[in-house]
Amino acid sequence: MSSTNNHTTSKASAEKVSTGNFFEDFHLNQVIQHATPRTIGDGEVALYIALTGARQVLPSAETVAQSLGYRTRPIDDLLAFHIAFGKTVPDISVNAVANLGYADVRFLHPVYAGDTLSTSSTVIGLKQNSNGKSGVVYVRSVSINQLQQPVFSWVRWVMVHRNNLDAAAPETVLPNLLNFVPAEELNVPSFLDARKFDTTSTGGQYVWDDYAVGERINHPAGMTISDSDHTLATKLYQNNARLHFDDVMMKKTAFGRRLMYGGHIISLCRALSHDGLENALTIAAINAGTHCNPTFGDDTIYTWTEVLDKWAIPNRNDIAALRLRMVGVKNMSAETLASTHVSNDGKQSYHPNVVLDLDYTVLMPKRSV
Amino acid sequence: MSSTNNHTTSKASAEKVSTGNFFEDFHLNQVIQHATPRTIGDGEVALYIALTGARQVLPSAETVAQSLGYRTRPIDDLLAFHIAFGKTVPDISVNAVANLGYADVRFLHPVYAGDTLSTSSTVIGLKQNSNGKSGVVYVRSVSINQLQQPVFSWVRWVMVHRNNLDAAAPETVLPNLLNFVPAEELNVPSFLDARKFDTTSTGGQYVWDDYAVGERINHPAGMTISDSDHTLATKLYQNNARLHFDDVMMKKTAFGRRLMYGGHIISLCRALSHDGLENALTIAAINAGTHCNPTFGDDTIYTWTEVLDKWAIPNRNDIAALRLRMVGVKNMSAETLASTHVSNDGKQSYHPNVVLDLDYTVLMPKRSV
Amino acid sequence: MSSTNNHTTSKASAEKVSTGNFFEDFHLNQVIQHATPRTIGDGEVALYIALTGARQVLPSAETVAQSLGYRTRPIDDLLAFHIAFGKTVPDISVNAVANLGYADVRFLHPVYAGDTLSTSSTVIGLKQNSNGKSGVVYVRSVSINQLQQPVFSWVRWVMVHRNNLDAAAPETVLPNLLNFVPAEELNVPSFLDARKFDTTSTGGQYVWDDYAVGERINHPAGMTISDSDHTLATKLYQNNARLHFDDVMMKKTAFGRRLMYGGHIISLCRALSHDGLENALTIAAINAGTHCNPTFGDDTIYTWTEVLDKWAIPNRNDIAALRLRMVGVKNMSAETLASTHVSNDGKQSYHPNVVLDLDYTVLMPKRSV
Repeated sequence: MSSTNNHTTSKASAEKVSTGNFFEDFHLNQVIQHATPRTIGDGEVALYIALTGARQVLPSAETVAQSLGYRTRPIDDLLAFHIAFGKTVPDISVNAVANLGYADVRFLHPVYAGDTLSTSSTVIGLKQNSNGKSGVVYVRSVSINQLQQPVFSWVRWVMVHRNNLDAAAPETVLPNLLNFVPAEELNVPSFLDARKFDTTSTGGQYVWDDYAVGERINHPAGMTISDSDHTLATKLYQNNARLHFDDVMMKKTAFGRRLMYGGHIISLCRALSHDGLENALTIAAINAGTHCNPTFGDDTIYTWTEVLDKWAIPNRNDIAALRLRMVGVKNMSAETLASTHVSNDGKQSYHPNVVLDLDYTVLMPKRSV
Repeated sequence: MSSTNNHTTSKASAEKVSTGNFFEDFHLNQVIQHATPRTIGDGEVALYIALTGARQVLPSAETVAQSLGYRTRPIDDLLAFHIAFGKTVPDISVNAVANLGYADVRFLHPVYAGDTLSTSSTVIGLKQNSNGKSGVVYVRSVSINQLQQPVFSWVRWVMVHRNNLDAAAPETVLPNLLNFVPAEELNVPSFLDARKFDTTSTGGQYVWDDYAVGERINHPAGMTISDSDHTLATKLYQNNARLHFDDVMMKKTAFGRRLMYGGHIISLCRALSHDGLENALTIAAINAGTHCNPTFGDDTIYTWTEVLDKWAIPNRNDIAALRLRMVGVKNMSAETLASTHVSNDGKQSYHPNVVLDLDYTVLMPKRSV
Repeated sequence: MSSTNNHTTSKASAEKVSTGNFFEDFHLNQVIQHATPRTIGDGEVALYIALTGARQVLPSAETVAQSLGYRTRPIDDLLAFHIAFGKTVPDISVNAVANLGYADVRFLHPVYAGDTLSTSSTVIGLKQNSNGKSGVVYVRSVSINQLQQPVFSWVRWVMVHRNNLDAAAPETVLPNLLNFVPAEELNVPSFLDARKFDTTSTGGQYVWDDYAVGERINHPAGMTISDSDHTLATKLYQNNARLHFDDVMMKKTAFGRRLMYGGHIISLCRALSHDGLENALTIAAINAGTHCNPTFGDDTIYTWTEVLDKWAIPNRNDIAALRLRMVGVKNMSAETLASTHVSNDGKQSYHPNVVLDLDYTVLMPKRSV
């Protein structure tokens, strides 16, 4: 047995329970192998559809996926990503004061039913706060499948408490982060051939050529989510952050109740955005994201999309990229809100009903000429 | 790429979102290929059991299904049907004033895990209403699997708004509809061999021979359904009719809240009817159905069954057909309600707690002689 | 057709619905084959994770399971057990006044996706109560897979109403029951090889050697469970005991609402106990259990574990057994409750927030020497 620790004596109970990592436990270039690889199967696929109402064609239809070159229908991009991401929570963010941001999220390889994902993280930046009570940790995480193929890569940064206030402050190192993943670095699978793509398979008649930079699409549907729905989803992702699950604990906080996992909001908005973006086949990157306000059980989620940019893909004329801004709104429809921000005494801040502001990139077939 | 449209210019956002079809958009013999084929897997099977409590033996037990000649356990008849049906919603009924009825629903081929269903509809009847503001559209829908085998065929008719009131009224064409699918047209799979059927596998000792026309069975169990339960089910079916999901929108309606999908009520009643109809192995047809009153989250569903008719199947002495009436009741047990109808000033109408009145046909083994 | 009954005439409706067995229907050595075998697939695996948040490594990760000698990832021990157990409800406990206890629960063989479980019970004890209105029935149940391999074996005893008060009382027979399954009778699969077990796969650094008899672990996480959650779980298990599902019926009882299935509480506590028992790979036995107080929707479940005993396994130095006491608590965290019992006028009784007191045995890798 290759044990990774040297403890050889019995432990008192308090020591048996992991307390996670504090700021002083992280050091530059440290590699953390996260626990519990996860096999994803047909069950996750069905439950994800039930939890989000997703109708994106690739995870839905084996026939269509195969006609485009996939081995079989791939697991929904965000379902697989949330599972990979959830693995980092016990080691990275369980003591987080705040999840500050993420960037450079790359979708590198399709995930298929039966694949097993393992995730590790490397500390790429550290900055202790001036108050000495906490610090910001930057990690790059990579998830690989059972064939050691990289499936996802992403950077996130969190503010974490210091536990030992006597520990020396580390040297400040801030990583260089991309504002967005450039078109030439997007993963476009070589097997993917959209030349024979048929829009009747998705019901959406508009392809890449039809979208214009600056265009806004108010997706009409709304989805009310109960506490049962969002906690089922977050447990499915094996994300064990306690603030999503423990209502007794949360009643003692300012929130007064369980918080919805922000990643699931991304999933709901992506599902709702199907009507108007039917041919956004797959996510190639998430460039940035802000969870602007909390969401709770019984909130109703709406979404709109703005086209930020349009990019050709080198050496491809069947498919191209759209950089999109996906805005999530709670309890008022997308068309009733003109802007994400409001002005208070000249200061701009997010409208209290805006819950998500996501910058991401999709691949969409081009019109054949 | 074989695109089905000729749009070659960028579109303003309002045009990107489908508004569905209005009455003037339908014409006789029009064929509509519905979007997003769907692969059904093991995940749907498990979730359907969790959502309904179904204990019907064929979808539950591979061993029993194979002993009767099935390749493996088939997907529950209604689960597969709801998924096929859901595909028609965006094109047929999203602008419906009312779902008026369905008929001649035929279960033509078993669905197995891994099958992908595609659905299309043909307009077989049109009748503009005298007020000129709406009309009735009749469609026959067919769902096929990835081997192009017809799996389901059914007729339904909906009242749809006219959007362009200047459009000319179409010629009135009303299809001839069967009151019920006759015994000689029922699909009884040639591979199905019930001669070795063992009632211990279902726990029900009564077979076709034991049921009498006119007999009524009050199924004892009741099932309380939350908003989370019925919306999970309807999302699983990828039925995106907004009145099931958007509580903010529904609060502005006379209902005041989300409506439960009528198809899921059929599923709940079928599951509850197991106790007393254990050997109703598979549904061969749905002849007619009325959703008499709406159901909502936290309603408790009960059901009773009346035997309408008993039919032999040509050239089969191992299995035969029962035509049944399945009545769904909310918030009072089946045994406490004598009749589906009440009389008000001599006029008969459905009891306010009756939510379903379904005429359907099952196949049940006969006693061997 | 091999029918197990001799009824050849049509039945009136009241007779079609099973009323279950009453005390006088049971006799010593009677064998009851329970209805509806159940195939367990990938869907159950995913839904169980979503319903419990379980992160135990064997059902989660195919790669890890295979590295330890399993053919593929096994179905979670308790998921499979609840499904096997649920099959006994219609025949054994549907008329139960009380589920009095269980013992000698043995986990004999892993269950894999695609396996079909069938369950039968043998009456091993009978004792009519002195009031003549009820009696206690002891049964040993066995569940086998499609290859006829025993998967589970367990004893339980229930108090059941007498229906025919004129029936003669049976001779009293009380079975000899084990207080616990001894180490030398635990099933430790011969294929299981934990010599290469790597604790990084579970995130838990403590192995069998590190736990001490008498040690108590307060697992920190809490899980709030809604009515939707626990009824989904219990329907997934095809346990049809009506008190879990029918809110209209339950409103007429002293409980006033649906009761949570006690077996699901065991699952929740086992999932919550992951943090501190990460390397408790698999359950080998349940020795005894008490469901001390009822749980309802919206209760929050916490748990603690006490180490009752430590046993070597004959001829194995890679793995050994821990006998554990798992205590479930509602609506207060484990660390806030010192003892399961309170004293009232010198009489000990369970604290009103203690909902489970379970004695069970797990297998855990030993530290290699």
